[in-house]
Amino acid sequence: MKFEIQKEVLIHAVGVVIKAISPKVSVPILSGLKITATSKEIIFVGSNNDISIQKTVPLEENGDEKAKVHEEGSVVLNAKFLSELVRKLPKDDISFTVEKNNVTKIKSGMSVFSLNGFPAEEYPKLPEIEGEADFTFSAGDLNSIVKQTAFAAATSELRPILTGINLNLKDGLKAIVTDSHRLAIKELKLAGEDRNVTIPAKALIELSKVFEDQEEQVEVILKDTQALFKSHNLLFYSRLLDGTFPEVSRLLPTTFNTTLKVDRKGLSAALNRCSLIESKNKVVVLEVKDKQAVLTVSSPEVGQIEEYLEDFEIEGKDIKIAFSYKFTQDALSAFEDEKVQFQFVEALRPFIIKGEKCDSVTQLVLPVRT
Amino acid sequence: MKFEIQKEVLIHAVGVVIKAISPKVSVPILSGLKITATSKEIIFVGSNNDISIQKTVPLEENGDEKAKVHEEGSVVLNAKFLSELVRKLPKDDISFTVEKNNVTKIKSGMSVFSLNGFPAEEYPKLPEIEGEADFTFSAGDLNSIVKQTAFAAATSELRPILTGINLNLKDGLKAIVTDSHRLAIKELKLAGEDRNVTIPAKALIELSKVFEDQEEQVEVILKDTQALFKSHNLLFYSRLLDGTFPEVSRLLPTTFNTTLKVDRKGLSAALNRCSLIESKNKVVVLEVKDKQAVLTVSSPEVGQIEEYLEDFEIEGKDIKIAFSYKFTQDALSAFEDEKVQFQFVEALRPFIIKGEKCDSVTQLVLPVRT
Repeated sequence: MKFEIQKEVLIHAVGVVIKAISPKVSVPILSGLKITATSKEIIFVGSNNDISIQKTVPLEENGDEKAKVHEEGSVVLNAKFLSELVRKLPKDDISFTVEKNNVTKIKSGMSVFSLNGFPAEEYPKLPEIEGEADFTFSAGDLNSIVKQTAFAAATSELRPILTGINLNLKDGLKAIVTDSHRLAIKELKLAGEDRNVTIPAKALIELSKVFEDQEEQVEVILKDTQALFKSHNLLFYSRLLDGTFPEVSRLLPTTFNTTLKVDRKGLSAALNRCSLIESKNKVVVLEVKDKQAVLTVSSPEVGQIEEYLEDFEIEGKDIKIAFSYKFTQDALSAFEDEKVQFQFVEALRPFIIKGEKCDSVTQLVLPVRT
Repeated sequence: MKFEIQKEVLIHAVGVVIKAISPKVSVPILSGLKITATSKEIIFVGSNNDISIQKTVPLEENGDEKAKVHEEGSVVLNAKFLSELVRKLPKDDISFTVEKNNVTKIKSGMSVFSLNGFPAEEYPKLPEIEGEADFTFSAGDLNSIVKQTAFAAATSELRPILTGINLNLKDGLKAIVTDSHRLAIKELKLAGEDRNVTIPAKALIELSKVFEDQEEQVEVILKDTQALFKSHNLLFYSRLLDGTFPEVSRLLPTTFNTTLKVDRKGLSAALNRCSLIESKNKVVVLEVKDKQAVLTVSSPEVGQIEEYLEDFEIEGKDIKIAFSYKFTQDALSAFEDEKVQFQFVEALRPFIIKGEKCDSVTQLVLPVRT
């Protein structure tokens, strides 16, 4: 294998596929990324247990020459090392030449690197997924799903299904995430056959980082154990999580006794100050009483914080309720509205947060017993 | 104690004295900073085993009111907590009121914080140092000493004296630092009586971060075990290191067989790429031969890097010498010259790096036996 490639093109391609490479791998070859040069394109592949990414660089695009292949072939090179190296290369033109025993010579200006490579034949094959797209959405839609729901996924593997984002396609797309202490739902208007799958939240987070253009269309093909996300010169494979995602609709209360509409940024700053006190379970108490709303956190060691809310409207009964300031801040981060609305039933029942204008997002937080 | 203070003034004062507060303290009160309000000023003090910092905020300066004292007194408050808190306060006016048992109420806008404080009487006293300045230098001079020598200090406490910057006042000031594998010397033209003390490098690094104005004059008063650095509204105390700093002048070779003058940035970038390969002892081999100069690093696992230098001039004999790329990069960081000059004796003798124009700085690096 022998080819030349432009530095910026190489940095971008390596930057995309390296998202699929884990810092710790069980098999040494998985620390590598596979590079294949053909007469038409150069293909970069990275892979771990959960996801695989293939990025194709056409030799020419829109009349620009991006790479030049002198001899077809393929090799696997240490991804982390290559990624650091390419950023530090002195010149814009880089040549790759595979020599004996997969040793790969990389030249740029007066720098010559001889890297020990792995044989490409030993690199795992990508899943075989073909067929029509189950649905198509934009990179921007994907980003809002990730930004507005992914934080609510479980980080422990105790119930693996809860580490995922449930995609429920039925009269539109509902993305649902819960770690059983909170729940985030994002709804999108989308056409497609009814489908219900759960994709590891980490996979969708990585996928959402790949796109520069938020308008880019992403085709989604769902199979039994795998999902394939296809866009321009990109294939992104993720395994699906096994099991049935919990039915969450029954958790959402429908009648409320107290509604608090409040300035989002002001509340977020107040919660941020509350988080300075390391309280048990990161708990803040909200008390709505006598037309005041006060957040309180206290710790026997450090002291106490009281935040009197400003710029709010209350409807309904007084309430005193304890909840995680961390979860509430995460939930607030899903909104861009000037004001958000908290809907409470009573002290020990979950409450809902909605944006003043945005109704595609629902956040639910379980209170804490104090 | 009761006073009001402007947020920006408070952030600055806390930011200065917190440099003297260690994240881990043996005595809880040392995690705090002492605040004293008098009829003229508010005084902030932070302290650890090595350094103490006192920053004074006059109630009024240049006609601007910075603070207002309603009741004199003092208290000690957790420094880390206070520092995070003051940055997050919602309004520009902040009031402090000490209540019963050193509980201190901090109010800003609609936020009320009650912090558990320590009694100020239990806070350690500052050293008593008075008298004439031994010498005076500018914050800019101090910064160049730190930037151009401090990296060469030992980090291990095996020989404590080597963790310091030796200040040798004799026909000017020589700042000398060595960890016994390399040596950095900075010379300054300064007047003063002959003195020779060694100050912990960490202390001078912290001191150099305090100043915004590089022209600011700093008076230095040296006593038996302590140094006091005095400038506008600031007292900075550092302990002196015990023992005799090694005599280094005999280490500096005076005749050389090979001189390599090379573009500093190009060499630094090449060493930076060399550092991608984790070789034993971070060693690079420089070979000067047949009017070429090549840096080589290799590792059996990863591969090999060869960097052919560009833009260089060689005088004298060919040489092949192995040295730490880390130490050499540190040494290069002391210069701003376009070109630097390496002066070699032979493969197993220390070599010297000098700037093309700057002759106040000398860097010496010991080679590595391979």
